[in-house]
Amino acid sequence: MFRELIPFDSAKKLIFDKINPKPLGAEKIPLKEAHNRILGEDVITNLDIPPFHRSTVDGYALKAEDSYGAEENKPIDLNVIGEISVGEYPKIHLKKGEAVEIVTGAPIPSGANAVIMVENTQKQKNRLLIYRALTQDENIMKKGTDIKKGEILLKAGKILEAPDIGVLAAIGLNFIKVMKIPIVAVISTGAEIIEPGKNLSPGKIYDINAYSLSAAVINSGGKPIYMGVIPDDEAALETALKQALLSSDIVITSGGVSVGPRDYTPKIVNSLGKPGVIISGIAVKPGKPTTIALIENKPVFSLPGHPTSALLIFYLLVSPIIQRIAGRKLISHKAVKAILTTRLFSAKGRKTFVTVKLSRDKNQILIADPTKTGASGAITTLAKADGFIEIPANQQFIDSNEEVIVTLLTNKKV
Amino acid sequence: MFRELIPFDSAKKLIFDKINPKPLGAEKIPLKEAHNRILGEDVITNLDIPPFHRSTVDGYALKAEDSYGAEENKPIDLNVIGEISVGEYPKIHLKKGEAVEIVTGAPIPSGANAVIMVENTQKQKNRLLIYRALTQDENIMKKGTDIKKGEILLKAGKILEAPDIGVLAAIGLNFIKVMKIPIVAVISTGAEIIEPGKNLSPGKIYDINAYSLSAAVINSGGKPIYMGVIPDDEAALETALKQALLSSDIVITSGGVSVGPRDYTPKIVNSLGKPGVIISGIAVKPGKPTTIALIENKPVFSLPGHPTSALLIFYLLVSPIIQRIAGRKLISHKAVKAILTTRLFSAKGRKTFVTVKLSRDKNQILIADPTKTGASGAITTLAKADGFIEIPANQQFIDSNEEVIVTLLTNKKV
Repeated sequence: MFRELIPFDSAKKLIFDKINPKPLGAEKIPLKEAHNRILGEDVITNLDIPPFHRSTVDGYALKAEDSYGAEENKPIDLNVIGEISVGEYPKIHLKKGEAVEIVTGAPIPSGANAVIMVENTQKQKNRLLIYRALTQDENIMKKGTDIKKGEILLKAGKILEAPDIGVLAAIGLNFIKVMKIPIVAVISTGAEIIEPGKNLSPGKIYDINAYSLSAAVINSGGKPIYMGVIPDDEAALETALKQALLSSDIVITSGGVSVGPRDYTPKIVNSLGKPGVIISGIAVKPGKPTTIALIENKPVFSLPGHPTSALLIFYLLVSPIIQRIAGRKLISHKAVKAILTTRLFSAKGRKTFVTVKLSRDKNQILIADPTKTGASGAITTLAKADGFIEIPANQQFIDSNEEVIVTLLTNKKV
Repeated sequence: MFRELIPFDSAKKLIFDKINPKPLGAEKIPLKEAHNRILGEDVITNLDIPPFHRSTVDGYALKAEDSYGAEENKPIDLNVIGEISVGEYPKIHLKKGEAVEIVTGAPIPSGANAVIMVENTQKQKNRLLIYRALTQDENIMKKGTDIKKGEILLKAGKILEAPDIGVLAAIGLNFIKVMKIPIVAVISTGAEIIEPGKNLSPGKIYDINAYSLSAAVINSGGKPIYMGVIPDDEAALETALKQALLSSDIVITSGGVSVGPRDYTPKIVNSLGKPGVIISGIAVKPGKPTTIALIENKPVFSLPGHPTSALLIFYLLVSPIIQRIAGRKLISHKAVKAILTTRLFSAKGRKTFVTVKLSRDKNQILIADPTKTGASGAITTLAKADGFIEIPANQQFIDSNEEVIVTLLTNKKV
């Protein structure tokens, strides 16, 4: 009747060792869809950006040497020999004593090495008076100063944020290799479970886990596929699991992992391939019956049916695996110190996680109030929580008014 | 030639006052697609969840009173009168001295008020020996303990995270009202601009802004539509702007806002409707030529062509407006203290923003190194930056080794 429970930290290590999560490889997608994706290759370019010396102002290109000595009250006189617009390559070659009208972004003509702003000049027909001396390269963005040919611009594994997307556009890429998104099949089990939107007949409850876990999968960098609710039927569950393994990279089930007569999820999962179940019960609260299998290199996480237990175990053990397979660096959850409001007991011999709500007392001290109502099935327990506290397996309790470390679940500012 | 610049902080206030950004209203979408969307209405339910008293363990339902005095060595004897499975409503009424076999999640039969775990019992045919006394309601999750009928579960404006999605599923919703996503038209202008993926002819550069700004729009809670690159042509720009105003809630252009002969974006924008241009130049560096208009209640942001200027002004002035129209609470950017590596000068009379890269020196002190290369057109300036420093308009410089406050641009851990 009793299974041997593996300590929580050993379970975590064992999962990483056995599953050995690695990215699935890269796929090419339009740059416009690449925001927040993970770069799948190092990006090197054979372009200098800008590809030519550009003016950064509206004014006149000239030789800096020609401007030496020019002052507000002592202008120097130059000869305007033409104008250069943006988007065209200038054929003009500029000689001593000459100036060329130029606009922001236009290429600098050969022979010129500075641009004087229009505000510091006065033009009379082809005669230009300049009222300021320039230094060499003033108001010029030189070829290759933004991006140098051959440089590694972005490294594989980078999350592509707005400026990175800009860099990739700058070198002319409209398609880019990104890491493939792992497909995660989500199955709910239980004869009492009904899909939201349907009528609730007596004795039934709505499916919570497939919805909350699917959202959590997206947050971890995976793409959930909803496999529906499987009633209490061994054959139906076996069919659904086989289908899930065929169409996904990771499988998550919830429910059917306790020790009751209808908890046959572990048995069926174990029959589907090698090595089969690698963890069968963890010394943790909540989440003790969690069962984890590896079927032909695909991880199958069988989580408890209680929504809070399922989602908390997802955060702790499943999400890091999905993140790694998605090619992401692990999210490091922020932690804060707070004062506990009530004494909390650990579950005997099990690492215990307790969800808490954070607030500030009248002295602006951060306090942590457990959201646990005694009902581990309660989804609201997690919805109300800002984070969780860990009580080590060998510690009996944490007293009220003790300082605790709260790992934050959300991005809420505290 | 010179425009009167409005101080940065006044510009920021004026934009909020004039645009008065408000959510666009709600739309109904499938719950499966609601992750990270903004809830569009308060959610109240007329269901108790769970809708019935449920067993939280596998075992036997009984009257707690019948168990009083039971001990490891002194079991009490009960009569098993049936069994209850999940998903069905029990017709059994339990009387004194009776027990009913029950599994996790199944409804508690009337007359019972506790459940003993199977581990604490021994069954011989219809006779059940119980080895432990129970308290009332032990191992029962009572009707309505997760969610109470009539309770406000989630408030309009909440970002829907995984546990919230679970709560909405729990009360049977498969569709949910969320705030509409603002559509943001993004237009690049300039005769020298070519779309990535095309051939780069002499004098041309690839479009950066439409790509980086579109990604930043997504990050702010908007949906970008890419209107393409408009060459230097007044009629084409007018057509594109009219089209953009028809098909979006917010318009962003980049380029064409300086004082050169072809900088006619402000003039055209101003002609499209009332009140027209409300800000024409801001005392800020970078981003001085930024022009902001309101055309029949739709904001039009005309940003400079320099990619770094455009994106920084987007972060500072455009993103907060999009977030508000998306129904979001404003992202509060984290700020850290760091030691500046080099003296930084402000632009005369303009609030100056300087992007910096953060690192730790050998004493683990956080240092801020400007990424500015002198080329404000450089997109890599922003891609390399972790955050930015503000120099007030009335301050001449910040000295090296001074402590500065760095507002973080990304979620990078420092």
